[in-house]
Amino acid sequence: MPETNASRVLKRTDAEAVYAVCGYLKRYLTGFAIEDGYVIADRGSVTMYTDARYIESAQKFFTGKPGFSVEEMTADNTPAKRLKKYKSVGIPFALTSYPDYKKLEELNVQLVDAMPAFTACMAVKTAEELSAIERACAIAEEGFLKLLPEIREGMTERECAARLEYEMRMAGAEGTSFDTIAAFGANASVPHHETDDTPLRFGDEILIDFGCKKNGYCSDITRTFLFGDDKKHEEFKELYARVLAAHELFKEKFRAGMTGREGDALARDYLAGYGLDKYFTHSLGHGIGLNIHEEPRLSPKSGTVFQDGMVFSDEPGVYFAGKAGIRIEDTVFLRDGKVHSFMHRTDKNLLII
Amino acid sequence: MPETNASRVLKRTDAEAVYAVCGYLKRYLTGFAIEDGYVIADRGSVTMYTDARYIESAQKFFTGKPGFSVEEMTADNTPAKRLKKYKSVGIPFALTSYPDYKKLEELNVQLVDAMPAFTACMAVKTAEELSAIERACAIAEEGFLKLLPEIREGMTERECAARLEYEMRMAGAEGTSFDTIAAFGANASVPHHETDDTPLRFGDEILIDFGCKKNGYCSDITRTFLFGDDKKHEEFKELYARVLAAHELFKEKFRAGMTGREGDALARDYLAGYGLDKYFTHSLGHGIGLNIHEEPRLSPKSGTVFQDGMVFSDEPGVYFAGKAGIRIEDTVFLRDGKVHSFMHRTDKNLLII
Repeated sequence: MPETNASRVLKRTDAEAVYAVCGYLKRYLTGFAIEDGYVIADRGSVTMYTDARYIESAQKFFTGKPGFSVEEMTADNTPAKRLKKYKSVGIPFALTSYPDYKKLEELNVQLVDAMPAFTACMAVKTAEELSAIERACAIAEEGFLKLLPEIREGMTERECAARLEYEMRMAGAEGTSFDTIAAFGANASVPHHETDDTPLRFGDEILIDFGCKKNGYCSDITRTFLFGDDKKHEEFKELYARVLAAHELFKEKFRAGMTGREGDALARDYLAGYGLDKYFTHSLGHGIGLNIHEEPRLSPKSGTVFQDGMVFSDEPGVYFAGKAGIRIEDTVFLRDGKVHSFMHRTDKNLLII
Repeated sequence: MPETNASRVLKRTDAEAVYAVCGYLKRYLTGFAIEDGYVIADRGSVTMYTDARYIESAQKFFTGKPGFSVEEMTADNTPAKRLKKYKSVGIPFALTSYPDYKKLEELNVQLVDAMPAFTACMAVKTAEELSAIERACAIAEEGFLKLLPEIREGMTERECAARLEYEMRMAGAEGTSFDTIAAFGANASVPHHETDDTPLRFGDEILIDFGCKKNGYCSDITRTFLFGDDKKHEEFKELYARVLAAHELFKEKFRAGMTGREGDALARDYLAGYGLDKYFTHSLGHGIGLNIHEEPRLSPKSGTVFQDGMVFSDEPGVYFAGKAGIRIEDTVFLRDGKVHSFMHRTDKNLLII
């Protein structure tokens, strides 16, 4: 069997087999998404047990992938029956419910926590995963560039989000990686604003936080810009320049071998130099992959040592309740020890449309 | 405190308080969605503990809701510190990981399984919940009706899904309730087809399975129809009539007090009368609410007794590998003991466009 995500997880797990029920772990092990069912991977094979809905497409998907197969869940294909032949089985404790754990205990196989192995493997992307994320980022940028000329006075946040999601879909997205945030004017001061029917007015700021999925992998990007310019924006422009500088400073200074805490501090300390750290109310970034939020974290609490192949967001932001909010975010990754962005087409200098 | 989802869950849980970490349970208890954090509900109050991102909007949301409040997660506001004042705490065992359960055990409070209470309460919708689902269904229908005149030869499945999602968004949807399935021609024979770049050809069948969210609540609907008519469709029309009859038969005959198994059998037995049961490869329906798939189930295995206020899908389907697939689905509910559909505007007689 050639090296696969499954073989990598197994190598890091001190068990004969790995058993996954959680959706994203099943997809990680097989590349194929199923709703119900489960996956068992051992040193020789990766077997997906699922229901009739998925058999046909799973068989097609596994063609030419040695070691991968699909079976229908039947009375003979229960996890209990399939797992008891192993001496030890790796399961992700943190994703295994208390009752499920108790049931597995009854099988008299040794249960080993596979969560650290999954987390560690998933945090460092393979070439194939990087390429899916790169594509998801390119689609998100394409959607944004298509959206820009469509923005006009009176358009609602909902319409703005709908247009953007449509353009991303048309550019090849499978769907959004989270509910698009479109915030006009003071709504941008709420870091997690729920897109509503607020209409766009001349002079408003626009904050859009969005992303899409490609082959199951996510992109995440935020752009803040101005709709029309007038004399009132001097302070906004000043703040924007600071947030952008924090965003860029991180990219420039962060290196493989540094911790998430050190990375977060690069941006946070810079903003503190301008008295802005108290308005930076969230962490600098989060890992991105099959999940929109995963390991590693760039936060004051993160001791994770970053390494090549990790993909994460760089998203400093400052928020002034009821007034304004600025966040600038790219999906970035580490290669040859340095930070590179997946975003190439959307300028981060303050855009005024 | 007036009756709320939280008070209903508490009433069914033999514990002084209920503790929720899982996203949809937090939303069910409070009506407000947060990513991280947790909710504790006791007889006197419902308190949401969250991070800075959500404080402002949560405070606004809880205004005028007696007993509801939000606090920031701090070193003083850990679950451990907030929970140890109770003698007993209800947690959903099935949604509590093994390590989390072990940590809660150390608090020396009695842990009670609140999952049955959550499941039972969530399965029977309040007037407010029914109204959100009704709205989500109306939006989905509106989107579908707007899509129909836009369908044309050469359009890809992806474009079809993108247009539909855009129209739902514009009609007020917060997002989709699942990735839209648009299947042209033989792709419809895969019950869980992944929307791709297949172009629409004259004479193709079209199967679209879609839904959206409103106030967090889902809708779910499938329509199968023909793009252009020609002599080859006689068998298809015959099969369509059978599936539609099974769909309608369920609506007509199913009653509160019957089990999920009996409901499933109404459609399955009817199809069996035409030798079609072996092509009906999934269950008849699933509950719909904050989750697109929840309790109660209409399946050969479901012993759940159905009652007024339950919302679920009625979706018989038949699939012929590589050839065709027909599924007809409404989101329906029980009132005065009988089945009513939330779908009023999209005809289920075979549509030929």
